Amino acid sequence: MTFPLPPDPTGTILGRRTFLRGAALALAGAPLGRLAGQPPAGPETTAAGLIVRSREPQNLEFPVGRLDRVITPNELFYVRNHFPAPTVDAAAWRLKVEGHVARPVELTLEAIRKLPAVTLPATLECCGNNRADLSPKTKGVQWGPGAVSTAEWTGVPLGAVLEMAGIRPGAVEVVLEGADRGTVADPPSPGPIPFARSLPLAKALRPEVLLAHTMNGVPLPAAHGAPLRAVVAGWYGVASIKWLTRLIVTDRPFQGFYQTYDYSVWDRSIGVPQLRVVTGMEVKSLVSHPAPQEAVPAGKPYKIRGAAWAGEHTVTTVEVSTDGGQSWGAARLLGQATPFTWRLWEFDWNAPAVGPAKVLARATDDAGRTQPLTRDPDRKNYVINHLIPVAVEVRG
Amino acid sequence: MTFPLPPDPTGTILGRRTFLRGAALALAGAPLGRLAGQPPAGPETTAAGLIVRSREPQNLEFPVGRLDRVITPNELFYVRNHFPAPTVDAAAWRLKVEGHVARPVELTLEAIRKLPAVTLPATLECCGNNRADLSPKTKGVQWGPGAVSTAEWTGVPLGAVLEMAGIRPGAVEVVLEGADRGTVADPPSPGPIPFARSLPLAKALRPEVLLAHTMNGVPLPAAHGAPLRAVVAGWYGVASIKWLTRLIVTDRPFQGFYQTYDYSVWDRSIGVPQLRVVTGMEVKSLVSHPAPQEAVPAGKPYKIRGAAWAGEHTVTTVEVSTDGGQSWGAARLLGQATPFTWRLWEFDWNAPAVGPAKVLARATDDAGRTQPLTRDPDRKNYVINHLIPVAVEVRG
Repeated sequence: MTFPLPPDPTGTILGRRTFLRGAALALAGAPLGRLAGQPPAGPETTAAGLIVRSREPQNLEFPVGRLDRVITPNELFYVRNHFPAPTVDAAAWRLKVEGHVARPVELTLEAIRKLPAVTLPATLECCGNNRADLSPKTKGVQWGPGAVSTAEWTGVPLGAVLEMAGIRPGAVEVVLEGADRGTVADPPSPGPIPFARSLPLAKALRPEVLLAHTMNGVPLPAAHGAPLRAVVAGWYGVASIKWLTRLIVTDRPFQGFYQTYDYSVWDRSIGVPQLRVVTGMEVKSLVSHPAPQEAVPAGKPYKIRGAAWAGEHTVTTVEVSTDGGQSWGAARLLGQATPFTWRLWEFDWNAPAVGPAKVLARATDDAGRTQPLTRDPDRKNYVINHLIPVAVEVRG
Repeated sequence: MTFPLPPDPTGTILGRRTFLRGAALALAGAPLGRLAGQPPAGPETTAAGLIVRSREPQNLEFPVGRLDRVITPNELFYVRNHFPAPTVDAAAWRLKVEGHVARPVELTLEAIRKLPAVTLPATLECCGNNRADLSPKTKGVQWGPGAVSTAEWTGVPLGAVLEMAGIRPGAVEVVLEGADRGTVADPPSPGPIPFARSLPLAKALRPEVLLAHTMNGVPLPAAHGAPLRAVVAGWYGVASIKWLTRLIVTDRPFQGFYQTYDYSVWDRSIGVPQLRVVTGMEVKSLVSHPAPQEAVPAGKPYKIRGAAWAGEHTVTTVEVSTDGGQSWGAARLLGQATPFTWRLWEFDWNAPAVGPAKVLARATDDAGRTQPLTRDPDRKNYVINHLIPVAVEVRG
């Protein structure tokens, strides 16, 4: 499932590791279009190179300059936690399935591992990805462009586990509860609440919704929800509950904190604004090369590179502009289209003039959705897929 | 519909108007059980005697010491606004009925007034009533005990108006939109939003849900939502949208700001906490006499008085304790039980000893609900019906 790393045509790119450490702050915090002479001293990174956005809870960003294949190595896969990561004893651990079911069940990890497994590559993106690019600043972790990664997940379809318990007539949703928990301040929670989200059964029973015990061929790492996590392919990452402990089938919609107060956007579809939970991913693209402030050679071939994804849909085109959006050219989509997974792309550029330039990428999907030119404020601090230019310096 | 004012047996009660002005602050802000020597200088009141909790938006509290009959005079009926009161031109005004209906309609006030009318006495209580008694202090208007009042409402059943438009199969709720609007800060609303709430059709179609144009026999006053407001009898006041402009029938639950962020409480019914919109009123009682810090004569008969209500249910008993809840005696319920309306009660007390005393009232309804002894923190800053003592001074 990996694609070969395209040859690096640039002689000018900074040493990759050095660049990432140096540019991370610029990726995250720089106002749009700012051109610094030198990258500022960067934020902390993990040994593997993840950018530390917060230590506790741990929020770690994929360094997008390391994008060179479809599958993100586990140690570079972004980490988004709301609470301290729980310690789960896999031997004592059980998955409870209860609520509006015929026969509540408890499953050991061993029993789940024995069920017929499915392997699915899927891209997860935090719906706060690129939040640092919003102006004015909004609440939440100030992600740069790297709260997105792709892995090959192996596990059991959620629907198969629900079938073991027997969904009763009248059921509408399933609540997924994680072992991670803590108190929230507004509204004040009297004591800790678990991280939990619901899925309507229409999504929960689809084949792309897995309970995954394996990530890129190895047992799920602790930071990614060991021993078992949900992978709700096509939806923003928040739905993919980690450290799963319980499934509760319900006969009325669940209104947990993380789908009412948090992770909701303004929706005007009926004429009176309301708050609607964030679900399926929008169409979006990422420019991995050049990076912000990267020096690009004038008059020489340079490969602009990146990835694009569209949730439950398939990316059909990626266009690139190097003149601030006045003209666009088609990028080459690499490899094969795979549902729920980002696709790498590249675009040949021959920068004509020395000086500052802006690189833009714009993806379109098979549902006809295209990345919007401007930010929709109804999306609050979530679902950031408008065009964000990468400011670079063309040098002679 | 009015009950005669019971004779006032006390010679010791302070002049009513004077007392109210003086005691309002004590009602609102005093810690439980605090006994001040003299009532502090009180907050502003309207000419009629409503206690001003905020000027803009206007939030005015019924002075509970004025409780002497079932029906609250319009000028003493509590006022709860979220935004500045809109100015509505009744001649140009229309009620739009749209959404998941067979034929959207627009109705003039004249047309609505010609429809068969129903008159219903109903108690409305703000679910933040008594918020000033909460410790620690919570967000919102710091109401004393008087964000509750009762009027005789005349209007058209909401169901009759919905029928004119024809509810389509698959409809689940109706959104009621008011003309009052403004911006909210958290989550930030991009521009003003209207005050709006939804009702499930199961409630919306009940006969006690009116669109009222008349309040206590006169055209609805501006402060109460002229020319037309909802009266959702049995539910907390927030559901009774004022300055009604539009009804939108929906085929999925509405998640407006005022039923997700605001006006929600923690609900643990399925095991994972969630936020549930506040709907039907809980059972509750109010002690109108004695008032806090009132001087009560020792060794002489004194009539403790008040009201009790229970939303969609009927109050069956009110008990009174004058010894801090160690012993209870039954109060006399006055008049007849009327659905959706508070009932006045009285209790004969002969205070034996000079010194501080605490008066408690506890109502029970025909659903078996009794006012709880202690505050449930899951209710956040809403639904305050636990026992709140009235501290008084018995004097020789």
